[in-house]
Amino acid sequence: MSAGAAKAAALDLADPLRGKRDLFQLPAGIIYLDGNSLGPPPKAAFAELEQAARREWGEGLIRSWNDAGWWSLTDTLGDRIGRLIGAAPGETVVTDTTSINVFKALHAALALRPQRHLILAERDSFPTDLYIAEGVAASRPGAELRLAGDNADLADMIDERTAVVLINHVDYRTGALHDMAHLTRCAHQAGALVVWDLCHSAGIVPIELDTLDVDFAIGCTYKYLNGGPGAPAFIFANRRHHDGLVQPLSGWWAHAAPFAMESGYRPAAGIRRLLCGTQPILSLRALKAALDVLDGIEIKAIRAKSLALTGFFMELVEPICREFGARIITPHNDSRGSQVAIALEQAYPVVQALIARGIIGDFRAPDIMRFGFAPLYLGFREVADAVAALHDVLASGAWRDPKFSTKALVT
Amino acid sequence: MSAGAAKAAALDLADPLRGKRDLFQLPAGIIYLDGNSLGPPPKAAFAELEQAARREWGEGLIRSWNDAGWWSLTDTLGDRIGRLIGAAPGETVVTDTTSINVFKALHAALALRPQRHLILAERDSFPTDLYIAEGVAASRPGAELRLAGDNADLADMIDERTAVVLINHVDYRTGALHDMAHLTRCAHQAGALVVWDLCHSAGIVPIELDTLDVDFAIGCTYKYLNGGPGAPAFIFANRRHHDGLVQPLSGWWAHAAPFAMESGYRPAAGIRRLLCGTQPILSLRALKAALDVLDGIEIKAIRAKSLALTGFFMELVEPICREFGARIITPHNDSRGSQVAIALEQAYPVVQALIARGIIGDFRAPDIMRFGFAPLYLGFREVADAVAALHDVLASGAWRDPKFSTKALVT
Repeated sequence: MSAGAAKAAALDLADPLRGKRDLFQLPAGIIYLDGNSLGPPPKAAFAELEQAARREWGEGLIRSWNDAGWWSLTDTLGDRIGRLIGAAPGETVVTDTTSINVFKALHAALALRPQRHLILAERDSFPTDLYIAEGVAASRPGAELRLAGDNADLADMIDERTAVVLINHVDYRTGALHDMAHLTRCAHQAGALVVWDLCHSAGIVPIELDTLDVDFAIGCTYKYLNGGPGAPAFIFANRRHHDGLVQPLSGWWAHAAPFAMESGYRPAAGIRRLLCGTQPILSLRALKAALDVLDGIEIKAIRAKSLALTGFFMELVEPICREFGARIITPHNDSRGSQVAIALEQAYPVVQALIARGIIGDFRAPDIMRFGFAPLYLGFREVADAVAALHDVLASGAWRDPKFSTKALVT
Repeated sequence: MSAGAAKAAALDLADPLRGKRDLFQLPAGIIYLDGNSLGPPPKAAFAELEQAARREWGEGLIRSWNDAGWWSLTDTLGDRIGRLIGAAPGETVVTDTTSINVFKALHAALALRPQRHLILAERDSFPTDLYIAEGVAASRPGAELRLAGDNADLADMIDERTAVVLINHVDYRTGALHDMAHLTRCAHQAGALVVWDLCHSAGIVPIELDTLDVDFAIGCTYKYLNGGPGAPAFIFANRRHHDGLVQPLSGWWAHAAPFAMESGYRPAAGIRRLLCGTQPILSLRALKAALDVLDGIEIKAIRAKSLALTGFFMELVEPICREFGARIITPHNDSRGSQVAIALEQAYPVVQALIARGIIGDFRAPDIMRFGFAPLYLGFREVADAVAALHDVLASGAWRDPKFSTKALVT
């Protein structure tokens, strides 16, 4: 047994979350390091879907909007995500997509700062955040999007013209964890608002939105929350903003009396003002099962194991990187999320060769291999095995097989 | 056997769609007259969901975005709905919600008519269409929403200031079917564009979007298309507008190279420009099963039975209306969709009393009982039985039980 394997065995033995893996459906022979992109199904999701489809849709039919709580899933699931991100009940709803929720949050923030016109974001932001910010800026008179080179620049750029700062909590490429307390304070000191994108931190990093007085946050539910492919996203608005919430996607789910069928829009009270139209109940129900798994687990315990997993991976992979000219671009200190990113010219075929061996990570342009470590279903032994496979793919030149260079539609 | 029952038996015997009912899961003892609000599950949806969840999500994991065609479901399902609404391939996508798609269509239309500022709609439009139109008007400088009393008014109001006319194909309350050819022509003659809301006509009324040169159309998939609770909606844009399509929800699914992760937005070609963010795959898959059912069935056959069902219902219910002071507000001629609406002061408790007997219709404010007739799973005998139950509820005064006046959250 190698030193790495021996250490892995000891770490697995001492892992308090070890038993959680049984709650997930994972195929045999696969080491899944892509939970930062799509989490695997909690086993309970299958029964939940069957209940929602066969019993509630098939037997309850239209009555299930009331009887099965369909109508309030946006709120009940929102509050459960709220617990994971430090939000009080009534501040979070699950609805629509991350992109659409960025749109709502930016519009709401601009409306709360009518004398200001700048939207600031990082140039390395998750792209869709920027695309949506462009859409907001282009369609809102006077609004302008400005991009900062990095987080330090971003903090420097905030001034009295800044309406809102849109920031990713974890950089989707490097895995760097940004300082929410500091950047929120910088924005607030200049009178600006913040929108935090929690796509790569919700469910994996302790977050204290209310304690830090964050204004808005958005995020997806299909990465570390394991809600299923394309599961609806969430949006948080601090309670102190609720009375002033205005956003142009004012659909009937955001109406004060949705079944009065009034011809004029009257905004609902509170966070429901950030809803819009009818939500996909079946997808929401898979998410419900996924949130059940997180019930009773402290994010702190998840975070501790996450740091241990990524730390162990970096420790083992560092010499391999030196040997093959690769470079870990994820911070070695605690300022990281739960992924490790490695820059390597041949990143694309190497990732494909690993996938062919059952080690599933992913590639991000231009030259990054990403490996995500989800503490609920991943053990240290798998980390050691993944590193051994990476070494073998590089040392053997297996990645040079032309079939590994064929680009797939979705990378 | 009453005359109604005898006629029903004859009609059922001659019904060419009779066998389709077996494709649906419907509870015993229920006559379901609310498919105009939420269609029942096609039995195949259960297997489809299981395949998507257990096999594709659980075994394929992230690879299923490519291997299981998840990424292109918006387009493949869109084209299949396109067939049902007279759209060529590449003109329709399934995505987001009806409300959000109204938003996109109105913005796109306004962008195509930059010298014009008016949005026209009917005062009796499905409310969320108006709420969204308000949101568009409020957030877009110079844009203004004006409401018409009825369809004739609407046609009269269209002038050279009109950018876009938003019209419901079927009135959700009365069930009246609007003249798509005429109103589209009126709009085009004045240089305006049209957005048709097909929520209550897609899958049940023959529609010829391309033949009539319609500009935009939107609709939901959970009524007569039976896609499941909150299944994603669709949006159609005529191919001649594709090059000029601009809408502010410019998310990464609408990017020309979504996986290049560029920091700037570059619009995708064609109809994908109306996509935004990641879609709920599980809900989309139930819709796929529902569209499988419609494959190989001509909308004309569905329409013929739909008119026969609603006609038979009106024939039987007319004397009851006279007896109890109720009034059919659905047109008796062919200018109707597939529902019959009856105005009656006690509509709410009467509908509840019917539901308690297994006859599921619904109530719409202020005083309307709605009964939807879906030809794929409904027979004429059920129509006769429903009418008999309605007579009994009214004649016996059963609706006076106070429990039937308790308002539910979702009506």
